[in-house]
Amino acid sequence: MKVGEKYYKSIWKDEGDHGSVHVIDQRRLPFSFEVMTLGSVADVYDAIRDMAVRGAPLIGAVAAWGVYLSFLEHVGRTVSSSDDQSASRDLLSPVRRDAERLKSARPTAVNLAWAVDYMTAVMKSYPDAGVLRKAAQGLCDEEEERSRMIGVHGLPLIEDISSKKHGDAVNILTHCNAGWLACVDYGTALAPVYLAHDNGIRVHVWVDETRPRNQGSRLTAWELVNHGVPCTLITDNAGGHLMQNGMVDIVLVGCDRATASGDVANKTGTYLKALAANDNGVPFWSALPASTFDLSVDRPGQIEIEERDADEVRTIDGVSIAPEGIAVSNYGFDVTPARLITGLITDRGICRAEKESILKMLS
Amino acid sequence: MKVGEKYYKSIWKDEGDHGSVHVIDQRRLPFSFEVMTLGSVADVYDAIRDMAVRGAPLIGAVAAWGVYLSFLEHVGRTVSSSDDQSASRDLLSPVRRDAERLKSARPTAVNLAWAVDYMTAVMKSYPDAGVLRKAAQGLCDEEEERSRMIGVHGLPLIEDISSKKHGDAVNILTHCNAGWLACVDYGTALAPVYLAHDNGIRVHVWVDETRPRNQGSRLTAWELVNHGVPCTLITDNAGGHLMQNGMVDIVLVGCDRATASGDVANKTGTYLKALAANDNGVPFWSALPASTFDLSVDRPGQIEIEERDADEVRTIDGVSIAPEGIAVSNYGFDVTPARLITGLITDRGICRAEKESILKMLS
Repeated sequence: MKVGEKYYKSIWKDEGDHGSVHVIDQRRLPFSFEVMTLGSVADVYDAIRDMAVRGAPLIGAVAAWGVYLSFLEHVGRTVSSSDDQSASRDLLSPVRRDAERLKSARPTAVNLAWAVDYMTAVMKSYPDAGVLRKAAQGLCDEEEERSRMIGVHGLPLIEDISSKKHGDAVNILTHCNAGWLACVDYGTALAPVYLAHDNGIRVHVWVDETRPRNQGSRLTAWELVNHGVPCTLITDNAGGHLMQNGMVDIVLVGCDRATASGDVANKTGTYLKALAANDNGVPFWSALPASTFDLSVDRPGQIEIEERDADEVRTIDGVSIAPEGIAVSNYGFDVTPARLITGLITDRGICRAEKESILKMLS
Repeated sequence: MKVGEKYYKSIWKDEGDHGSVHVIDQRRLPFSFEVMTLGSVADVYDAIRDMAVRGAPLIGAVAAWGVYLSFLEHVGRTVSSSDDQSASRDLLSPVRRDAERLKSARPTAVNLAWAVDYMTAVMKSYPDAGVLRKAAQGLCDEEEERSRMIGVHGLPLIEDISSKKHGDAVNILTHCNAGWLACVDYGTALAPVYLAHDNGIRVHVWVDETRPRNQGSRLTAWELVNHGVPCTLITDNAGGHLMQNGMVDIVLVGCDRATASGDVANKTGTYLKALAANDNGVPFWSALPASTFDLSVDRPGQIEIEERDADEVRTIDGVSIAPEGIAVSNYGFDVTPARLITGLITDRGICRAEKESILKMLS
């Protein structure tokens, strides 16, 4: 998507350069746009741990490049076929150690472990820098394509509303950041929005600031402004009033985990917006890659909710905003029950938030 | 209520001192507890305009003292009965000018205009400093008594839950600041909580931070901590998850204006909490002085909602937290429809949120 007049992805590799990848330092947004060059697996580890990069799909993509960079560092271009098996194991063992360490950089990110394990499996079969480079790039390309397909499948929802409104701007409310910064490009919930905008459909996005980490005001607002999509920042408290007054046509949010029954765990506060949408007849959709379904779980209560650090609530950018030492509760996510969800948008198509419809779409 | 080991009200006058009143500078809370001495009507005007004092009942009380201080300044102790009528009018006219100016310090605060008009009416009949002092003090005492009676009428709701929980802590969720800092003492929504706590009933309060002005994290949390009431600060996004998981027994909020049908305008975000309470079978009560009913209005849409400054959302304590110049929408209040409200707690008793029950209580 665009930043100023130039198109960016959230991670990229320059053609000629073998020993590094580039990412955007998301900690500095929206105040400063800084590209970070990651030249070693140690750089990759730090970037993930310190949240210079965040968003499950992007973390996975960056980590894949981490395994590649570790291989370059410890092994070089290839393990010659003349090396015997045990020598090859010895050569690869420091890479395996780096890979394990990478997985610990953000312990709860499922995509991180998955991407690292995928890369070490490729390495076991093909201990070759060129192959690993292609594998990491392939993983990024697939991630991007999944996001694009979410956009393709979600676009008709926005087109329908637009035509019913005779071309007046479609008002979309979103919570947290489910945009291209969290993915490689396009995003999940924002993918249909970007596609609609690029296709000349008039859209306007209400951006929930998303306390406590303010991903909405910091990242989503920045993304949309830079790509030229009209948007308005609101507090997390405001969406209900807007929906009561006919100022929201559709709610589009991301998803951190979906049950087989269509319940959606997403950033805390999503459930409140779903209730307001339901109360006011506003369609509420969650967008996700099909891989985000956890079919082993089919009740909201079965999803464990992470509790995060109290200082996220007590401070903003290091500035204290509450009485010192006050007790804080800080659940990172909540679960929106399927009954409040109009439907789910995935890279495989759209479906209703219920088991039969989900399984049919996935089959 | 208590601050440290000492009892305070939000406004007070020292016995011996005729020429000043004392208030707490609420702009400095929760970081610093500073008492401001207002020694002139100009001080009173500044304190209201600059929001050193806020909360409709408190603003009214402070403004009443402002008229008294203006009278002291321009007239002195009394207008002698030997002065003829036109001389008396001339003497009082600078006080009337000050009174009009006071009303403009916060134009939307109904209590402010009401209190000032009350004091000038008293002055017209009794142009005497002693009488005006008693009138201002009486207005404060009545305000305090109204809050205490809200507490008395709301207390049984908490006692009931406590006895059903066999004395386990009653978990109360509140939004914004409807505590003693907004009133003269006790508060509205918090009055029953303070009374319960003082009566030895175990309570615990979930405090919504209340973006964008953070009255929850700044004022409500400070009040409760200082009075020794157990409480936990949460983001405005968190209440839904807590209610889904049985961690909230009752929601208690204030009210800025109530319709004859029992709809409640209150700080933006209140409606979202009412939806969550309704969805999870949690009782939702709004507390208000009976004077807050606007019986001329009986539909939610008839209440005009104030739009506030964009920088309240873009910044915290002067620190920018969003892309520069981003468009912002900042409605200060929302309206919770009566159907989501279990009942209303007033100084005159409790009632259901419906016309018949309200009129019966008020008659």
